[in-house]
Amino acid sequence: MTVYLVGAGPGDPELITLKAVEALKKADVVVYDRLANDKILNHAKKAKFIYVGKKAGEHYKSQEEINQILLEEAKNNETVVRLKGGDPFVFGRGGEEMLALLEKGIPSEVIPGITSAVGVPTTLGLPVTHRGVATSLTIVTGHEDPTKSEKQVKWDFKADTIIILMGIGRLEDNTKEIMKYKDPKTPVCVIENGTLPEQRIIIGTLEDIHTKDIKPPALVVIGPVVDIFKKARL
Amino acid sequence: MTVYLVGAGPGDPELITLKAVEALKKADVVVYDRLANDKILNHAKKAKFIYVGKKAGEHYKSQEEINQILLEEAKNNETVVRLKGGDPFVFGRGGEEMLALLEKGIPSEVIPGITSAVGVPTTLGLPVTHRGVATSLTIVTGHEDPTKSEKQVKWDFKADTIIILMGIGRLEDNTKEIMKYKDPKTPVCVIENGTLPEQRIIIGTLEDIHTKDIKPPALVVIGPVVDIFKKARL
Repeated sequence: MTVYLVGAGPGDPELITLKAVEALKKADVVVYDRLANDKILNHAKKAKFIYVGKKAGEHYKSQEEINQILLEEAKNNETVVRLKGGDPFVFGRGGEEMLALLEKGIPSEVIPGITSAVGVPTTLGLPVTHRGVATSLTIVTGHEDPTKSEKQVKWDFKADTIIILMGIGRLEDNTKEIMKYKDPKTPVCVIENGTLPEQRIIIGTLEDIHTKDIKPPALVVIGPVVDIFKKARL
Repeated sequence: MTVYLVGAGPGDPELITLKAVEALKKADVVVYDRLANDKILNHAKKAKFIYVGKKAGEHYKSQEEINQILLEEAKNNETVVRLKGGDPFVFGRGGEEMLALLEKGIPSEVIPGITSAVGVPTTLGLPVTHRGVATSLTIVTGHEDPTKSEKQVKWDFKADTIIILMGIGRLEDNTKEIMKYKDPKTPVCVIENGTLPEQRIIIGTLEDIHTKDIKPPALVVIGPVVDIFKKARL
């Protein structure tokens, strides 16, 4: 028994790795959530599928419940794939699953995926780093654990490019924080449904991006690299 | 004529995407440098190969020379693939190539790859983010353009995890800078030749990691997530 924690990439089913496809092919069970595309699941020809994501009218499965499912399935099957969008360790909670498996002595292997934080801008032709413009990038979640008493994210990142995942719900609050440290005119690019046919691009600045019509899932890219993209692609 | 700027991933030839393999298959020309593995080039069955990386006894091709090669090949061929390790836009200078092509009216498409900054730690089981431990990560180059008069990188990143690419040559200088802002006992994990058979892992702290025997290419991961990795995998 092995549990593979596998990243499916940013959405486009062609942006999965050869290694992830091989793991899906030999999977007896695939445990998945909020995947962008059924074509990815179709690589798993002989697997049982267990959906652990959001469903209209039902509650989210808690992380504890998902861990329990992985433990149960690992006991009864040779190969379990836990498939996640993006990379399992970039805000994918893969670390918690790895530790839960470890505690019960169940071996796990991790197969990285292209995180949407990088893959979505790259696919557009938006360079997240660029010589002379951006020599550092910070990736941060816009959606902190609301049960935490102390705010964990401080927004005074010095990186030239800031990329916010799950950043739409609190976009106004977070851009207000960032404007304490960066010019309000700093360009911002928001990409809805990145790498998918229904992709939409919204351009603005730190001070006005929250006034635009944006629906999640969307990625927020902040910094002068957005100007390179505007010049090259828009 | 189209130039595809393609990311080959962190090294392991199985960590390339299906989309990158398709581009290689139809390539008439592949322009590549410092690739970890010949197996990746073998996907390009009908292509002419042009190596533009470092060669013993010869000079590096300058970015300007590489741009010229891409322009020339694009004029004479239907499909040119510019293949790079990692992701073309994470310190890959893909943005400069895209702009050089644009200036001459040559269409380009970008195919992302797994950046080693994320893919190498993920493959190890080192979560670069972890609930309650790290809600942000900064990726930075340790190797700044030495022709710049002003130092561009300020090292007071507030991110919980800092990942340095090309960080070995100036490791002592850079960790000294980071210790102005972070505890000298902050754990550090260095991975040489990540995802490849000759991979080596070196563990230390901000204050002592520069004293260890480390050879490039290597990735530096700094932050409390390293302790999770030590507990889970070492």
